[in-house]
Amino acid sequence: MGLFERLTNDVCELLGLDCNTPTDAVFSFTGLCSRGGKTGAHVDGWGIAFYDGRAARVFLDPQPAVRSPLAELLRTWPLRSLIIVAHIRRRTRGPTSLPNTHPFTRELWGRHWTFAHNGTVPGARRLKLGRFRPIGTTDSEHVFCHLLEVLRSELGDYPRSPRTLVDLIAKASRRIANDGTLNYLLSDSHRLYARSSTSLFHIIRQAPFGQATLSDDEVKVNFADLTTPRDRVAVVATRPLTRDERWTAGNPGELWVFENGALRFSVDSRGKQDGRAQAFQARGRARDQSRAADGVSP
Amino acid sequence: MGLFERLTNDVCELLGLDCNTPTDAVFSFTGLCSRGGKTGAHVDGWGIAFYDGRAARVFLDPQPAVRSPLAELLRTWPLRSLIIVAHIRRRTRGPTSLPNTHPFTRELWGRHWTFAHNGTVPGARRLKLGRFRPIGTTDSEHVFCHLLEVLRSELGDYPRSPRTLVDLIAKASRRIANDGTLNYLLSDSHRLYARSSTSLFHIIRQAPFGQATLSDDEVKVNFADLTTPRDRVAVVATRPLTRDERWTAGNPGELWVFENGALRFSVDSRGKQDGRAQAFQARGRARDQSRAADGVSP
Repeated sequence: MGLFERLTNDVCELLGLDCNTPTDAVFSFTGLCSRGGKTGAHVDGWGIAFYDGRAARVFLDPQPAVRSPLAELLRTWPLRSLIIVAHIRRRTRGPTSLPNTHPFTRELWGRHWTFAHNGTVPGARRLKLGRFRPIGTTDSEHVFCHLLEVLRSELGDYPRSPRTLVDLIAKASRRIANDGTLNYLLSDSHRLYARSSTSLFHIIRQAPFGQATLSDDEVKVNFADLTTPRDRVAVVATRPLTRDERWTAGNPGELWVFENGALRFSVDSRGKQDGRAQAFQARGRARDQSRAADGVSP
Repeated sequence: MGLFERLTNDVCELLGLDCNTPTDAVFSFTGLCSRGGKTGAHVDGWGIAFYDGRAARVFLDPQPAVRSPLAELLRTWPLRSLIIVAHIRRRTRGPTSLPNTHPFTRELWGRHWTFAHNGTVPGARRLKLGRFRPIGTTDSEHVFCHLLEVLRSELGDYPRSPRTLVDLIAKASRRIANDGTLNYLLSDSHRLYARSSTSLFHIIRQAPFGQATLSDDEVKVNFADLTTPRDRVAVVATRPLTRDERWTAGNPGELWVFENGALRFSVDSRGKQDGRAQAFQARGRARDQSRAADGVSP
């Protein structure tokens, strides 16, 4: 059974990783894709973005995974990155197409921004656009283009204060979500922004590392065998991917901001920091690529 | 010997295809990559963009091809597209990186633009930028961002008249090339723009189809076996890829514009149409994907 052939329960699922050392997503991606059991349901469009500095390398496939050599490639290629954004879609109506495949990418302020969305925003077409225009026809890409235009027009340049950026993203997201469901992953190459509307979970994996078992598979991994004590990885997913780790559920309207593998900011549905954000340890990102906390090919 | 391991003579090579029916690039890409004979020289960074409607699916690999599973994937996966832009680089100084890997991509007017460059523009940093900013550090990406800013600021929106767009691209390119070498491939998802400064060739393959043999290999293909009479493919490359076809050399400063597999415009170094452009047959792009003129996996 192929990696991308077993998603059943949801129309789409999100997976994000934010790490302090370059990490591959094979274990979590396997969990994401086996979601719902080995029923053989086809995944019909999927994409994954791996950041390398300010640039994102994005692999998109609008085709059913059963016909996709790219799916097979990524199942066996442990590409490492500090930030990974993935999206998997199960077809419900009509064919998928490349322009409608998440994650979407745009350049703003000399860095790639990526966006993957789970939900529906029926009034998205009414959101004001500016320099960013949709290429495809999804509400999701329209929301993304609108959000970037808000940032560009209100900030002018990438702000020195992360709080300024976080507050603006949170505020714009609340406004957009008034008219729909807005679970999303967003990255600017520096941080991973994860917004919960109906379903989003995260976990921080750090020392002491334990064992984890994928929720829908018998695949186990002992992270202690694969990591160094300083490794730290934040994993965000539509639902918990493992059954023996403690995942944190997002509240409706909550925005998490991850940096260096830690939760740096958490903004609640009223725009207030809700106090749950962990103390942010501002140690630099690791430079060595010798070990990776998520790095196992089951 | 891998597909991407045999480039020797040039720092980089360009390959573009513009077709009236979805076509794969395996034959020409094999020719591009075997350029210079089977000497085992490593290709150190390469990328290829396949258009699907207004969106481009871009595969980038800054790694030596000898370690690249992606190179092996694309050698055997006949992805079909109406417009393909590829770039291969041989390392001369220092490592390549993802942000510096061609082709570059930006969204303008709701369509992906892609750009691959062969040459050097020493004064590129002095070219004015606007809404598009480089992510990497190459002169090539700076030129691309500048060119798009010229189009955006002078045209406002995608012009109905192709001549307006072509003339502006030609004019801006002449100005940029005053300060460097500007062989490039550019696409807006609708047309393929190919500019020659020092070395660029093209060929139009159409009925009656003959046989072709790759210049540096013994790989032959009889296009008549692989095409329908209505298929037409324009192939552009840094140097002729085959030894038994008649390739047209670009004059210094010349800009070719291909559409539906035909040469629609040709602008010379003084901005005049030079009369060599073929009569453009404005028949629509083919919808069927049953046959492809370049579609053979040697």
